[in-house]
Amino acid sequence: MDKNLPIEERVKDLLPLMTMEEKILQLASFYPNGVERLGIPNLQPGECLHGVAAEEATSFPQAIALGSTWDTDLIEKVATVIAREARALGIHHCYTPMLGVTRDCRWGRTEESYGEDAYLVSKIGEAFINGLQGKGDDRFSKDRIIATAKHYVADAEPLSGNNGAAVEISDRALHEVHLPPFKVAVEQAKVGSIMPAHHSLNGVPCHANNYILKDVLRKDYGFDGVIVSDNGDIRMLHTTMKVAKDLNDAAVMALEAGVDSELAWMCPMGENRGYGTLFAEACKKGDIDMALVDQAVANVLTAKFRIGLFDEEGSTAVQEDFLDMQGVFNSDEHIHYADTKRSFGIKRDNYKEILYSEAHNKVALEAAHKSIILLKNDANLLPLDPSKLNRIAVLGPNANTKILGGYSTSKPRYFVTILDGIKEYVGDDTEIVHAEGCTPTDFIEQDIDKAVDLAKASDVVILAVGGNELTCKENEDVDTLDLVGDQQQLIEAVYETGTPVVLILLHGRPNSIGWAADNIPAILEGWYLGQECGHAIASTIFGDLNPGGKLPITVPRNVGQVPAFYNKLPFGRQQKYYKSSPEPLYPFGYGLSYTTFAMSEPKLSAKTMKQSETLTVSVNVTNTGKMTGEEVVQLYLHDDLCSVTRPSKELKGFKRVKVEPGKSIQVTFEINEEMLSFRNQGKWMVEPGQFTVMVGNSSTHYKETSFILEA
Amino acid sequence: MDKNLPIEERVKDLLPLMTMEEKILQLASFYPNGVERLGIPNLQPGECLHGVAAEEATSFPQAIALGSTWDTDLIEKVATVIAREARALGIHHCYTPMLGVTRDCRWGRTEESYGEDAYLVSKIGEAFINGLQGKGDDRFSKDRIIATAKHYVADAEPLSGNNGAAVEISDRALHEVHLPPFKVAVEQAKVGSIMPAHHSLNGVPCHANNYILKDVLRKDYGFDGVIVSDNGDIRMLHTTMKVAKDLNDAAVMALEAGVDSELAWMCPMGENRGYGTLFAEACKKGDIDMALVDQAVANVLTAKFRIGLFDEEGSTAVQEDFLDMQGVFNSDEHIHYADTKRSFGIKRDNYKEILYSEAHNKVALEAAHKSIILLKNDANLLPLDPSKLNRIAVLGPNANTKILGGYSTSKPRYFVTILDGIKEYVGDDTEIVHAEGCTPTDFIEQDIDKAVDLAKASDVVILAVGGNELTCKENEDVDTLDLVGDQQQLIEAVYETGTPVVLILLHGRPNSIGWAADNIPAILEGWYLGQECGHAIASTIFGDLNPGGKLPITVPRNVGQVPAFYNKLPFGRQQKYYKSSPEPLYPFGYGLSYTTFAMSEPKLSAKTMKQSETLTVSVNVTNTGKMTGEEVVQLYLHDDLCSVTRPSKELKGFKRVKVEPGKSIQVTFEINEEMLSFRNQGKWMVEPGQFTVMVGNSSTHYKETSFILEA
Repeated sequence: MDKNLPIEERVKDLLPLMTMEEKILQLASFYPNGVERLGIPNLQPGECLHGVAAEEATSFPQAIALGSTWDTDLIEKVATVIAREARALGIHHCYTPMLGVTRDCRWGRTEESYGEDAYLVSKIGEAFINGLQGKGDDRFSKDRIIATAKHYVADAEPLSGNNGAAVEISDRALHEVHLPPFKVAVEQAKVGSIMPAHHSLNGVPCHANNYILKDVLRKDYGFDGVIVSDNGDIRMLHTTMKVAKDLNDAAVMALEAGVDSELAWMCPMGENRGYGTLFAEACKKGDIDMALVDQAVANVLTAKFRIGLFDEEGSTAVQEDFLDMQGVFNSDEHIHYADTKRSFGIKRDNYKEILYSEAHNKVALEAAHKSIILLKNDANLLPLDPSKLNRIAVLGPNANTKILGGYSTSKPRYFVTILDGIKEYVGDDTEIVHAEGCTPTDFIEQDIDKAVDLAKASDVVILAVGGNELTCKENEDVDTLDLVGDQQQLIEAVYETGTPVVLILLHGRPNSIGWAADNIPAILEGWYLGQECGHAIASTIFGDLNPGGKLPITVPRNVGQVPAFYNKLPFGRQQKYYKSSPEPLYPFGYGLSYTTFAMSEPKLSAKTMKQSETLTVSVNVTNTGKMTGEEVVQLYLHDDLCSVTRPSKELKGFKRVKVEPGKSIQVTFEINEEMLSFRNQGKWMVEPGQFTVMVGNSSTHYKETSFILEA
Repeated sequence: MDKNLPIEERVKDLLPLMTMEEKILQLASFYPNGVERLGIPNLQPGECLHGVAAEEATSFPQAIALGSTWDTDLIEKVATVIAREARALGIHHCYTPMLGVTRDCRWGRTEESYGEDAYLVSKIGEAFINGLQGKGDDRFSKDRIIATAKHYVADAEPLSGNNGAAVEISDRALHEVHLPPFKVAVEQAKVGSIMPAHHSLNGVPCHANNYILKDVLRKDYGFDGVIVSDNGDIRMLHTTMKVAKDLNDAAVMALEAGVDSELAWMCPMGENRGYGTLFAEACKKGDIDMALVDQAVANVLTAKFRIGLFDEEGSTAVQEDFLDMQGVFNSDEHIHYADTKRSFGIKRDNYKEILYSEAHNKVALEAAHKSIILLKNDANLLPLDPSKLNRIAVLGPNANTKILGGYSTSKPRYFVTILDGIKEYVGDDTEIVHAEGCTPTDFIEQDIDKAVDLAKASDVVILAVGGNELTCKENEDVDTLDLVGDQQQLIEAVYETGTPVVLILLHGRPNSIGWAADNIPAILEGWYLGQECGHAIASTIFGDLNPGGKLPITVPRNVGQVPAFYNKLPFGRQQKYYKSSPEPLYPFGYGLSYTTFAMSEPKLSAKTMKQSETLTVSVNVTNTGKMTGEEVVQLYLHDDLCSVTRPSKELKGFKRVKVEPGKSIQVTFEINEEMLSFRNQGKWMVEPGQFTVMVGNSSTHYKETSFILEA
């Protein structure tokens, strides 16, 4: 209990005082694990994917929308707010962020990720962790929490698009695509916790995978935090993966691989207290080294020390009725509104003051603003001038619905729908009419005729379609990217009226919107925008805000073209589909603006580079239009000759800049040796020779130069 | 020239007599490579995927249909006929069989494969090679040719379904799924030739891949034949794969990896004589070891000696007008009607006698019979009794068209369409009416109304739909499995008439036929059935023949569920798709019969097995119906506890048996240690413990027992 001693010593002192029972209690997360006798505090986890999943908490845009901002400063600010609210609600540890590099958008968890690119996910993830945990002296201070990088590793390229499906990939794909966000999370952001993935990786379940947990994570990356298991994954080593002969064996395998604790209340093993109870059995029989148990307990205790709980009054207390609550995970109604009492601990007295904060609302609005991507804007239909519009039809199943995406609270402080936002914006000067037209989930309750009538009688249509928490959902994937239900029919019927249509997409994954891309003049991508949805959309369509988000994931033409990520290895034959283009509908990194930007030829600081030195590449971005706007400058590299095949290009830098009309801004990136390295024969290496440097505003729109890496 | 010397010695004697020019000429295939001065014969390749791709040759069912027979004796017989005809046409060497284990049916070459399972492909492939090359004393005798196992390796699981797309897979998938057919081809069937695949495998192009070409193929499997390169693949090491700095470097890399010769006339490199000319350059400069060139030349010469060409009169001669011919590969009209003069050599005088053979026609008919799979037969609609039918409508775009699949001749000796076959069968007793209804390739020229009128006025409809050589094609894949054009509309319109419909599928890959599976009472899968198509279909629908083929590939519900193969590794979560079942429409190994079979519980010769010993498992198959029929008994195994995750089941044996009504036949399989082995950490191993034995008539319909492999 001496604050002045190093944590390591405090843990060492405490361990021998603990009974076996008290030790195994430490290994149960989401279960009361404080021990009053010894003053061991309770570590309370919670869900914080895009806001604390708790009533009254601020609701930010979904992860895929945060990825669309390409703005790491903003992301850190968002996560800082989330941590502050979490801590106010008694949460010390969250199962966020999800660092999957999403290469198959059939996956229901696409929305929980920051996109399809290792570098983008790494940088957004790093900023998010920094926001949650704090940095430097502020790390793990009183308004910060422990982040969990998940699902370790390669969860986002599952076979047939199915969550938890077996992953069999090359060493290259593992180390160049899926591991980098975790490497950055550990080495740069010092993430406090890691959650292994649900699947088997090249035949070895992640929860029993010594290579990824010990060799790579602990040894190579130097991870010194706690490894937490999700819901049932340890039990599965026996029940479905068939690598453990019984539940005891499963628990021992996980412990030996380095899994420290288990989410204990959802899938109870061993008298409702998680897999630790099984160790007791194994220990009694001498089947397991007690030092392994002690190491796991020490990792959990260390986390509790780090986040300052040992030094906080009343921290051994837990929610009194914890065990009586009924979870609402995976309910049919809405998934992951995990705001039962289990999901947070003892609230701070002033928690309402912290949550009900104008400053937090402003961050939510800024994040919503920056998430919006302009996909199409023919003849500058957008922005609209409300003074010229007598009547606006706000149509579609997502125009007036509270949709937040998975891992949300069902009761955010407030939610501004698109209809709300537009009404508020235009006031009494313009008439707003509304109809849903159809549902986004099924072929029932449609009222397309009413929507068409309103469209006919209006000057413009704002049509909001997409999906919701039922159509894009953890543990339920899709075998089509078509809009669900009669939404496509609704779009076509409304289009046929001749009234100009602005299409707003709100959903958790890309949809096949080829017809709309060909016919509808203006399209905005929003994913889920959080509580400020309607304000952000209204500001955008009426031009108070100039959209500047970029796609963090390729929009394929249809489900038959997945995986559709941009950075594929070269083809041995020309890529062709019968009667269909293999080019994506919208490429990675793409997004328009209401203004226009010109980008200069990229200039290198030198035409050659010595190994272990760096180069810089600069471009000037000029706003050649009439409105202030933001552009995301993107750097891609390609190794022009290599001993193994390399992706056609790889994102290696990005910067979101604001430029006023007629003004220019110089953007400079550094190119270092690590950015030129690649994986071959199970090792990282760099080869001298020519590299192409591409700088532009999407993965398909750039200017090139090149340099020579010297031998 | 001394026939009595061993081939090795003859090659050794010949090499020093050859000029560099003569040597490099040996490395050009599909190019005149005889050297009259030294009596070196010309080795003439050809295409023989399912019959020689030459005018007048016998046309057999496409490879995927041959895979559907599950009958290795038949396959060997088919290939024996093909070899005899090839040799008569002056062909000594063919680029067949394709041993891809097809896990993604978007791939245009799905039709060229024997299916999705490593064991099935291995056994069908082995039989095919045995038929082409002969066995024992008959090996490479005067009516045999050299087979080529291709595309080495893992061509049939390309990213996004695209031919030649990069393949990044685990060691397990490589060795357990994709390599086994090649291992069997080399070790069991002693295949004379191997063609590397077009793609890069885990970053290394197959044409420069020392691991698969040298370590695995030459060293582990002991391959002693010739490695032949396809069209442009060596050049691509530089042009697209970017692993070689120029064409010379590309040629050297391929030679060093062990590629012996190149298909020279399609993508000429170095003065039209293939990549060998580039060696001359490299040799001059001293950039390459002459011994490598000599080894490649020796491998080619050895092939020429083996097939007996050195000892055959006139074998240095080539087609006089070889170089003037215009290739028709990849024409828009029909692909791979490769029957130009380039595709065969100096014909034997009696070639017509050999080709125009009633015996060959009979083998083609038998193969077509055995390929047909009965997918559905509600209320025993089939077989039809023609005496009760006044009028039959034979409808659909594939009812009266010559379709053979890729790598066919455009002019087989004859082709019996479904319409022809039915007319011939029923004679004058029943009126046959016909309309196409629509095209199988586009949304044009439809005449659905006429088809509907004919259906209404008929007693039964035989409706033939599917695809053709334009919709399933090498180098053009698909992003949907829906029937192309208005075929679905045609099926529904004809169904609506109320006249009973028998649906016949002719195509190169599975289609999404969920609606038909739900509504149409009888469905036959034929793929492409070769010249006897109409006879085989007529015999089947009228009951002279009882269909007994089984699916060699899973039929998924739609393209969004690929890959859909049956033997997946276990899932970490329950597999689910929004509003769609993840179960396939028809599973691997499935197929019905006009009769019924009962299968007994499987009986093991013992309940335990020592390592290196064998067990047998037996079942009795009883024909409990009224018609003689054929059943394919299938053995699947599962390792119940293993240090790595294992597929839910794996095919390890099959036998097609004919059983008369009321009779039983005992089928016995041997279980040996190799069948229990698996890949872990880059090695094959076997672990003691319990194994489940499943014997049944499809991958989802079986009875179980189990045994213990002793430690």
